[in-house]
Amino acid sequence: MIALQKISYTIAALAVVSRVGASDNGLARTPQMGWDNWNAFGCSVSETLLQQTAELIVNYGLRDLGYHYVVLDDCWSVGRNASNNNSLAADPTKFPAGMKAAADNIHDLGLGFGMYSSAGKYTCGGYAGSLGYEEVDANTWANWGVDYLKYDNCYNEGQAGTQLISYNRYNVMSKALNATGRPILYSLCNWGEDYPFNWAPTIANSWRISGDIFDDWDQADARCPCDGDDAWDCRLPGFHCSVTNIMNKVSFIVSKSQPGAWNDLDMLEVGNGGMTDAEYVAHFSMWAAVKSPLILGNDLRIVPAADLSIISNAAVIAINQDPNGSSAARRWKYATNGTDANGRAEIQMWSGTLMSTTGGDYYDFVVLLINGNNVETVLNATLADIFVDFGAGGTADEVKIPWEVRDLWANRMSTTEAQAIISANGTAGYNGTNVQTRYNATQTSYAEGLAAADELLLGNVTTTIQPSGTVSATIAPHGAAIFRLRAMPTAATKKRDEL
Amino acid sequence: MIALQKISYTIAALAVVSRVGASDNGLARTPQMGWDNWNAFGCSVSETLLQQTAELIVNYGLRDLGYHYVVLDDCWSVGRNASNNNSLAADPTKFPAGMKAAADNIHDLGLGFGMYSSAGKYTCGGYAGSLGYEEVDANTWANWGVDYLKYDNCYNEGQAGTQLISYNRYNVMSKALNATGRPILYSLCNWGEDYPFNWAPTIANSWRISGDIFDDWDQADARCPCDGDDAWDCRLPGFHCSVTNIMNKVSFIVSKSQPGAWNDLDMLEVGNGGMTDAEYVAHFSMWAAVKSPLILGNDLRIVPAADLSIISNAAVIAINQDPNGSSAARRWKYATNGTDANGRAEIQMWSGTLMSTTGGDYYDFVVLLINGNNVETVLNATLADIFVDFGAGGTADEVKIPWEVRDLWANRMSTTEAQAIISANGTAGYNGTNVQTRYNATQTSYAEGLAAADELLLGNVTTTIQPSGTVSATIAPHGAAIFRLRAMPTAATKKRDEL
Amino acid sequence: MIALQKISYTIAALAVVSRVGASDNGLARTPQMGWDNWNAFGCSVSETLLQQTAELIVNYGLRDLGYHYVVLDDCWSVGRNASNNNSLAADPTKFPAGMKAAADNIHDLGLGFGMYSSAGKYTCGGYAGSLGYEEVDANTWANWGVDYLKYDNCYNEGQAGTQLISYNRYNVMSKALNATGRPILYSLCNWGEDYPFNWAPTIANSWRISGDIFDDWDQADARCPCDGDDAWDCRLPGFHCSVTNIMNKVSFIVSKSQPGAWNDLDMLEVGNGGMTDAEYVAHFSMWAAVKSPLILGNDLRIVPAADLSIISNAAVIAINQDPNGSSAARRWKYATNGTDANGRAEIQMWSGTLMSTTGGDYYDFVVLLINGNNVETVLNATLADIFVDFGAGGTADEVKIPWEVRDLWANRMSTTEAQAIISANGTAGYNGTNVQTRYNATQTSYAEGLAAADELLLGNVTTTIQPSGTVSATIAPHGAAIFRLRAMPTAATKKRDEL
Amino acid sequence: MIALQKISYTIAALAVVSRVGASDNGLARTPQMGWDNWNAFGCSVSETLLQQTAELIVNYGLRDLGYHYVVLDDCWSVGRNASNNNSLAADPTKFPAGMKAAADNIHDLGLGFGMYSSAGKYTCGGYAGSLGYEEVDANTWANWGVDYLKYDNCYNEGQAGTQLISYNRYNVMSKALNATGRPILYSLCNWGEDYPFNWAPTIANSWRISGDIFDDWDQADARCPCDGDDAWDCRLPGFHCSVTNIMNKVSFIVSKSQPGAWNDLDMLEVGNGGMTDAEYVAHFSMWAAVKSPLILGNDLRIVPAADLSIISNAAVIAINQDPNGSSAARRWKYATNGTDANGRAEIQMWSGTLMSTTGGDYYDFVVLLINGNNVETVLNATLADIFVDFGAGGTADEVKIPWEVRDLWANRMSTTEAQAIISANGTAGYNGTNVQTRYNATQTSYAEGLAAADELLLGNVTTTIQPSGTVSATIAPHGAAIFRLRAMPTAATKKRDEL
Repeated sequence: MIALQKISYTIAALAVVSRVGASDNGLARTPQMGWDNWNAFGCSVSETLLQQTAELIVNYGLRDLGYHYVVLDDCWSVGRNASNNNSLAADPTKFPAGMKAAADNIHDLGLGFGMYSSAGKYTCGGYAGSLGYEEVDANTWANWGVDYLKYDNCYNEGQAGTQLISYNRYNVMSKALNATGRPILYSLCNWGEDYPFNWAPTIANSWRISGDIFDDWDQADARCPCDGDDAWDCRLPGFHCSVTNIMNKVSFIVSKSQPGAWNDLDMLEVGNGGMTDAEYVAHFSMWAAVKSPLILGNDLRIVPAADLSIISNAAVIAINQDPNGSSAARRWKYATNGTDANGRAEIQMWSGTLMSTTGGDYYDFVVLLINGNNVETVLNATLADIFVDFGAGGTADEVKIPWEVRDLWANRMSTTEAQAIISANGTAGYNGTNVQTRYNATQTSYAEGLAAADELLLGNVTTTIQPSGTVSATIAPHGAAIFRLRAMPTAATKKRDEL
Repeated sequence: MIALQKISYTIAALAVVSRVGASDNGLARTPQMGWDNWNAFGCSVSETLLQQTAELIVNYGLRDLGYHYVVLDDCWSVGRNASNNNSLAADPTKFPAGMKAAADNIHDLGLGFGMYSSAGKYTCGGYAGSLGYEEVDANTWANWGVDYLKYDNCYNEGQAGTQLISYNRYNVMSKALNATGRPILYSLCNWGEDYPFNWAPTIANSWRISGDIFDDWDQADARCPCDGDDAWDCRLPGFHCSVTNIMNKVSFIVSKSQPGAWNDLDMLEVGNGGMTDAEYVAHFSMWAAVKSPLILGNDLRIVPAADLSIISNAAVIAINQDPNGSSAARRWKYATNGTDANGRAEIQMWSGTLMSTTGGDYYDFVVLLINGNNVETVLNATLADIFVDFGAGGTADEVKIPWEVRDLWANRMSTTEAQAIISANGTAGYNGTNVQTRYNATQTSYAEGLAAADELLLGNVTTTIQPSGTVSATIAPHGAAIFRLRAMPTAATKKRDEL
Repeated sequence: MIALQKISYTIAALAVVSRVGASDNGLARTPQMGWDNWNAFGCSVSETLLQQTAELIVNYGLRDLGYHYVVLDDCWSVGRNASNNNSLAADPTKFPAGMKAAADNIHDLGLGFGMYSSAGKYTCGGYAGSLGYEEVDANTWANWGVDYLKYDNCYNEGQAGTQLISYNRYNVMSKALNATGRPILYSLCNWGEDYPFNWAPTIANSWRISGDIFDDWDQADARCPCDGDDAWDCRLPGFHCSVTNIMNKVSFIVSKSQPGAWNDLDMLEVGNGGMTDAEYVAHFSMWAAVKSPLILGNDLRIVPAADLSIISNAAVIAINQDPNGSSAARRWKYATNGTDANGRAEIQMWSGTLMSTTGGDYYDFVVLLINGNNVETVLNATLADIFVDFGAGGTADEVKIPWEVRDLWANRMSTTEAQAIISANGTAGYNGTNVQTRYNATQTSYAEGLAAADELLLGNVTTTIQPSGTVSATIAPHGAAIFRLRAMPTAATKKRDEL
Repeated sequence: MIALQKISYTIAALAVVSRVGASDNGLARTPQMGWDNWNAFGCSVSETLLQQTAELIVNYGLRDLGYHYVVLDDCWSVGRNASNNNSLAADPTKFPAGMKAAADNIHDLGLGFGMYSSAGKYTCGGYAGSLGYEEVDANTWANWGVDYLKYDNCYNEGQAGTQLISYNRYNVMSKALNATGRPILYSLCNWGEDYPFNWAPTIANSWRISGDIFDDWDQADARCPCDGDDAWDCRLPGFHCSVTNIMNKVSFIVSKSQPGAWNDLDMLEVGNGGMTDAEYVAHFSMWAAVKSPLILGNDLRIVPAADLSIISNAAVIAINQDPNGSSAARRWKYATNGTDANGRAEIQMWSGTLMSTTGGDYYDFVVLLINGNNVETVLNATLADIFVDFGAGGTADEVKIPWEVRDLWANRMSTTEAQAIISANGTAGYNGTNVQTRYNATQTSYAEGLAAADELLLGNVTTTIQPSGTVSATIAPHGAAIFRLRAMPTAATKKRDEL
């Protein structure tokens, strides 16, 4: 058995789940947030880049929205130092002050420092990998003050192909990290090979579920060959996977995510220029709804204002950081006729439970409508479909009460304000800590804010729907709408089952 | 080779099969019957729930129809007791009198007590799992008086993906159970991963063949991704699998069931409210015909009268408990036009051998017609198709004789009577032991009753069909008809092959 | 690399292939021929049945056509004798004179004796299996005088799922058989699991490629789920596989057959009554053309005359027993409109090299045309397609010469004659040894007969076709035509490549 | 992560990649080139054939175009010499002077000597294989002066089916070769089983990705069953794979190729007569663009002039030997209506980065247009599609500048000239070393020639295209066009990202 369906049981389950720890390290009780240089910079890394970016994360208010980790990706080393226990040495050209200094600077800004390696002979970029050097490397990183490890899969010397082989390979590093005594978030990156959703939850905080993301909505690429109804069974993860491709892959395994252990849809592309504003809004909404880690992947030094406003939406982030930690699930997907340039057209509806912000017996609910058509489309989600997990065919109690519908993009920051933040760059108060109109998760956690029904986290009331009603939205081409449903305070309190 | 096709050989084979024992424990010569709390209660378990349910099983006459095991599912422990050999300890809040007392009470009612654990680090609900603790746990359960183990698959630490890895993992518990000396039915629950129908028959009494059932007829759900012609090859069993999805999965592997070792289609949803009466009738008929364990999954304290009448149908249960232990097989499935809300429409015919109740040389036969259309439909099954295993294209001897057709739902208990039983709750004689109009399997086993051609097990004579004829039925949307065919006593006795 | 394409290279290769021995036992240089009781009798075995059948094999002239092995299938033992080294004991009821006597009697008739067991805990019928007892069992069989082992796959305790696991399991018996010093043909029967065509050739003389055959042309059955373009990759071989299903499976792996090591399409169904005469003619032609072992599976005591005439066709058998040992390959398969009751309709053409009977530089060639339509159909095979392996698009030298076409069913024994043989039952000279109109392979091997261009092996001249011409045949529904093409003696001698 | 997308990062990556060595042997920094006897001669090998061919390679100027290795394929041995450390012995009939002499002669001509064996009990032709004899065989070859090993996969005794099993089997030989101290290029040939693109790059210089090639454009053959969108996941590589089939297989894994480690599409069929001139031109262009080893597979003694002119095209070879070592990738493939005799019709566009020959900041680019239609077709490639890897939807900087388009077949050697070379056979100066109109890579490496923008490597200027423009070509049936795009010198220099 897998699912716990009704509210009373789920509450019981949540108490239990706290015993199940990814790596038993207590980290990532909600999906990790942060920034990684790969999508925008690849191998062009340096201490300057990290420092500049870390400062912008603070100054643009992103730190106080929860973006915590600054992750240095591949290409940072010059290999192993035979005279120093074969430990990895940082590239002195890229990091003249050394890696510990880089970490210290990041820590001084109230952020965490992430590091990259591969469970192979080489990293994907061809640098020294950690396979066979797990202990020494974990100790090196702990000594540097590393808080996070992204651990890749290249050049693994045939140690893949069955769950046990992959589990064993990645478990060596899990144990090594834990043995350091330093809490290090373990971001397993084997691209979904060998069904990591089965075996990674006890050893890692997240696991990638696909090949590398590509900054496009739905372009098919032979190099990312798994698509469609059996995309979860992918033995060639590849790369250049579109947002739609990855979202499809997670649809089959949403239940595998849980506090401390998350499906990772790869780093965000918002801000990298390959998609429209509607597409980036949808991309961010999707990643939030399925509880993917939210790791920014753009060049913050040149972030467009519109993109900054997307990644700054606290109401959407609050979906991602919901204390229940339950991913939305896809309720339906239909092919349609609004074919785009890639020959695709489909519409989808996802929904899932959220922590209650009403104090009643009903969960809040997230509803995500995705318009893959190439034209503006009105999409409809019935309460029967939204709440199908609580009873098929509209038999759920939740279908029989009215709901308040809140549009989570209604309060999106204006481009003007975003541009002002960018222009100020921390000099004029726009650093996220002293602007009252913005949510500050450093001061008040999302869990606390939701418990207090902080309006900054709840979007705008759009409408109310009656029992057996329908949530509707007019959505731009390749766009999405995301709503929070809250049980109407006037509804009769649902009776919990008593034994 | 796999199949034994003709009556004389099968008789020979049956003598042989008795030597093949699941776990060599002699249990489950017919599919196990009982009740499990998961489908209706999830983690909300308690000794009160077990006790109340056990009493209702007796009072509603279900015990005497064969429902023997009361199975306590996940979430019952508080972990391991380091000072007591690391044995599992029951949750004292949920089971204040202790687990042995719970078992004793169940035994006192003439019922068996079932227990749950997982072959992993944790159970699916996040409690302590038994992987690595098989011996100590088996001994604990034996000491408590446990008669049945449902053994799950969560958090298995990569020990899956090949038949041998899964076999070895589950075999450890098989041996541990046998070593206790107490007969404990072993219900293997790895959701069909790694083809358990190949390797489980020698170590377990049943094995699940799919992800968890969902209380719906045919809704597609991305979380149960395997469907269609290769659904038997499912590496992501998932959950939220509809009745139709599971029935399709078993169609490929019906021959793997045998006395002592059964394909398990998961616990019944009858009474949980997600399906129509016709759908529940079909669901129960299907599970019976393919020799699935019949484990009730509803809340008996609030069972609707109509649902009680379904699970009380002795004539259908007699199909399931037939001494031959031979599953019906799907003879055809066609897509049709009567599409339902889920976009599906298909009709199916299944048939299979039953013990003869006529004393002649011919087996009885079960015929199951399934109407997946969204409209009432007349379905037809030709004798040629029904008996195809005895000769293709209508060449079987069985096609050339007339048959008596008995509708196994014709004598379904009325809702009025069912309601009376519920209302009486054991106080007015409706406890199944002293009502002459009901079959009492405690007094007379199904094997004995069938040998005596007890009319309570045979349904109503509906019609007779002539050689090369057709069995027809008008069937409600998403409904099924199930018939017992008996060779007409006037037919010439079939000659067995002599050597 | 796999293929050797042109005649000169193949000649070189043939010399080489002789070094590659299945089991290194020197047996089955051409596909084994014989009889096995399973298809017609299942578990109903006895020494009487074997003796009666062996005598009929001689008396009906089948021995002298090459049917050599009398194979006793499952259900012959009563288990292991703990006081005799745990050796298997024959069932004294079925074999009162003992197994050695049964073997002696068969040997006295000039036939070989075959035996059955399973590489598992039990046989498929539930009797004691040989897994873990390979040496003692091999010795027992050698002592009894066994010449042939069919070795099954049931109850293998998870020892399947990778090539290496299956290879190791079956190799234990291969070594044990060889260690006895007695030449025992090793017929590996794991139903095609784990790609035995890759690893069985060095340890066995043949390997099954599918689940058990069913006596039908093309009926789909959920219990034999692998069909279509990826049917070779079957992880659930199942049973009840139609002739068409099995023929499709071999199409992908024809090149794996070689002298001493053959793809086994399962025992013949000719004579068991489920198919039409045209279908049985096609079935026998197919098995012959792809070099399957030809193991009769019918009840010879009641063989219909028409079926005896099919299995007695020396010209078709000569295709099967061709010294080159090269399987025909499928050149094309097309879906058509002549749909049958199972909803199928397709036509196929196969061709392959044969030993030259002309003494020239060109191989003979076999052409097999299969009509899966439900109506009589004219099928055409161009020389370009027949000889495509020697050059695509009609570029082969073989396309540029004329060919004599011989219909291998033209000289089919008449039903009258077959009935006379049956009626005589050895008493009137119809025992195959003294009838001049029949080929006697005991006296003159097929290799010798072909070398001498014995007309009894060559069918009837039907026509000649000119360069770039077409072979045509009018074929009954579900029937086949099979031709031997011989280079016209008037054609210019093809020059071999010289170095 | 896998890809490095922009020019500045890739440059960084290239520096890195030099640390990743296939076998750490430093060989094949660009794809190996040469000749192998198998496609044309199979087992008909001899020292005479090698010597004649080697001389023709020199005399026809092929050596000086880069064709370096003369590879002796299967069937050269007479087995192991028990009295000489079980080392392999060459067939004295085929190689009367011995193998060392054959190698010396080849070396004397300035060529390398390649050898063949199989990682199995036997070679595919049935000769002694090297499994279990890796060290002794590697030493034998090193002593003979072998420079190259093609290592096959037949009769591997079940040692396949998981990546680790295959890796371990092939790694034994990798280590043995390296241990000899002689640089021996390691050409791994397991036909793509077990995803060698994952594990071979660290142990071998190239790995086959398919079953054996067949000299045809797109004929479907049941013996090469993997085709279509999941062709990369092929567990039955088979043989008789068409050019189109193999090209499709590489489309999914192009990124796995890198200096020192290449996807091997199998030996060329140019000159073997099964395809049209247009098809051979396309075949050669494809293999070049995806960085396959270019190993001739024809009989050079009878090479048609037109085919010599194909394999002599230095401008196309320069694509293959580009120092960047980055494979082109398929950008699109569409089914069309121009169906050919095999029922297929599709068009494709591939593109990829090349070393800059302009000295600017932009890579050169290769564009390959493939016309699978049976009619002449105009194909168009937009800059947006060509440069999609640098930005989806036309957002790449490269789309915004003009490009010079050079047709790489425009300067194809005339048939007259090719025939003159053949007729001269080295006697009249046409030996490739002293003809100024031909590129001589022995004197000037392709890297040097490209750096110098040698016109012999650049094709003819066909046209220029403006920003957001389209490259067009009119292409013969089953033909291809291949272009080099060079950034227009007048274009504004692209600014690299600075940190």
